[in-house]
Amino acid sequence: MSRSRASAQRAQAVVALGGGHGLHASLSALRNLVDDLTVDSLTAVVTVADNGGSSGRLRGEFGVLPPGDLRMALAALCGEDDWGVTWARVLQHRFEGDGEMRGHVIGNLLIVGLWELLGDHVDALDWVGRLLGAKGRVLPMALTPMDITADVRGLVPSDPEALTRVRGQVEVATTGGVIASVALDPPEPEVSPVVVDAIAEADWAVLGPGSWFTSVLPHLLVPQLRQALVETDARLVVVLNLAEQAGETGGFGASDHLAVLAEHAPDLAIHTVLADRECVAEELDDLEETVAALGANLVVDDVAMGDGSPRHDPVKLAAAYARIFAG
Amino acid sequence: MSRSRASAQRAQAVVALGGGHGLHASLSALRNLVDDLTVDSLTAVVTVADNGGSSGRLRGEFGVLPPGDLRMALAALCGEDDWGVTWARVLQHRFEGDGEMRGHVIGNLLIVGLWELLGDHVDALDWVGRLLGAKGRVLPMALTPMDITADVRGLVPSDPEALTRVRGQVEVATTGGVIASVALDPPEPEVSPVVVDAIAEADWAVLGPGSWFTSVLPHLLVPQLRQALVETDARLVVVLNLAEQAGETGGFGASDHLAVLAEHAPDLAIHTVLADRECVAEELDDLEETVAALGANLVVDDVAMGDGSPRHDPVKLAAAYARIFAG
Repeated sequence: MSRSRASAQRAQAVVALGGGHGLHASLSALRNLVDDLTVDSLTAVVTVADNGGSSGRLRGEFGVLPPGDLRMALAALCGEDDWGVTWARVLQHRFEGDGEMRGHVIGNLLIVGLWELLGDHVDALDWVGRLLGAKGRVLPMALTPMDITADVRGLVPSDPEALTRVRGQVEVATTGGVIASVALDPPEPEVSPVVVDAIAEADWAVLGPGSWFTSVLPHLLVPQLRQALVETDARLVVVLNLAEQAGETGGFGASDHLAVLAEHAPDLAIHTVLADRECVAEELDDLEETVAALGANLVVDDVAMGDGSPRHDPVKLAAAYARIFAG
Repeated sequence: MSRSRASAQRAQAVVALGGGHGLHASLSALRNLVDDLTVDSLTAVVTVADNGGSSGRLRGEFGVLPPGDLRMALAALCGEDDWGVTWARVLQHRFEGDGEMRGHVIGNLLIVGLWELLGDHVDALDWVGRLLGAKGRVLPMALTPMDITADVRGLVPSDPEALTRVRGQVEVATTGGVIASVALDPPEPEVSPVVVDAIAEADWAVLGPGSWFTSVLPHLLVPQLRQALVETDARLVVVLNLAEQAGETGGFGASDHLAVLAEHAPDLAIHTVLADRECVAEELDDLEETVAALGANLVVDDVAMGDGSPRHDPVKLAAAYARIFAG
């Protein structure tokens, strides 16, 4: 989109909800729209339920929010000059070797240190954002660390229909069974008023792509967040994944993703569902029906990387977002 | 010194050599002279022989230079605005608790990460300097980690004159005996040409204050550094400590400090020796003789904190430096 065309329209305020690599991809696209003035306010609201890797260790050691997904979101929004790009690389740098630091990521340590020093989650993340010259704000979905629990079918060989309670983001994401439902512990974590305000003031809220049960749905399970999403005038765009994920969404088609989303948040109005053309080609009729039943618009567009990997292309995804926001 | 008076003189290029809290104090003073334009180029050359604490652990895990003294020097030079002060606090922040991160310092981890990422010691430290808005440059005295070894008298009860070889900065600094001499392992560590150039181009070189055997003398034991200090036109100011240090300089008076310095670098010309008035009051005649024998000027000034602690007052020390540099 040309700058002149963009500036002729009203710039949009966008909130992107998710976590992990999916949110990173979405933000990498949305930052392009900040650059061309289509978006004038971009806020990421990030899952804080991770219990694995560097984040899990820091959470265990200090009782803090897991910083990893927040760090990854900040890195996605870094300024594109040498300064922003270098500090983003530093933040993303992971120690190797076989010593006590192995697996820890610099940005995670920096964020935890800032939390300890400043005593305020949002303020600390804003400092990292300023360091990076970030093109948007990154906020945690809640102010207390949480765990995801799932009721999973198929883990009891003698009773295939029996439900087993699985606890922890890592454990849920890698379960060998079929997830029937997920919940949060604690069930009502505190949400920063800054997050609620950002959702209230947004023109668009983007949910997904990402690990469906462990990065996307958790936002809808936090009562204050779901209420904010239900009450806002922002139009909700749900971005479907490009592939099922072994473990949490093994065997799930596009319609199945939407079905579990609707089950977990029946009062949520979806404005647009964005799917990749090639990914949904074989189930398009089914998907159209599901989306129509939800009262939403289906946008089928070419948003995948051309290399066959199940990753969103930031430039193509940005173009798709721009078309949706202009609609 | 007023800005107008300072700018009427030629601004000076200063190199400060040392490590630990002593160098931090010296840099805290010298940064004031950058502010008032007395000094227009300030370079810290920092000991890299630490083997204890967070630095020792990182050195052991990654084989890198111990970052702690470099980090402390950078923090001393931070910009005085909210940005510089906050990032300096972040860099200096030490993790507590009882987990694997306990005792590690954010800035140490950041510096090691930058070294891994950029592959260049000096470039990485310059990045941290830019982050802090630092008022000078911080360089490592050598590009390979080193150990300090000391021949120590008095550790063999049956033979009080016997010399025992003690290895490691921590072990030397806390020895129960009397240090006869120190050496480096490796004896000829590689020095960055940036350090050699800074010394060659300096108007003044400031050595000390600081742990005498483990932060101050090591600079004179690196052949390339000593040669640079001998060959430069820069005038050398030796800043004496305010107290003996239990362990490495227990029982040492001001003259003893100068004597061991001269023993370890007999070809080094000292221009000025700076001592605190109250500290040397009782041994002033002796000190005057020693300094005269070295062909140096003795400056006795009020440079200690007024609270009785053996710490230099940055403002008073800056005033003393300004008088010396003007003279």
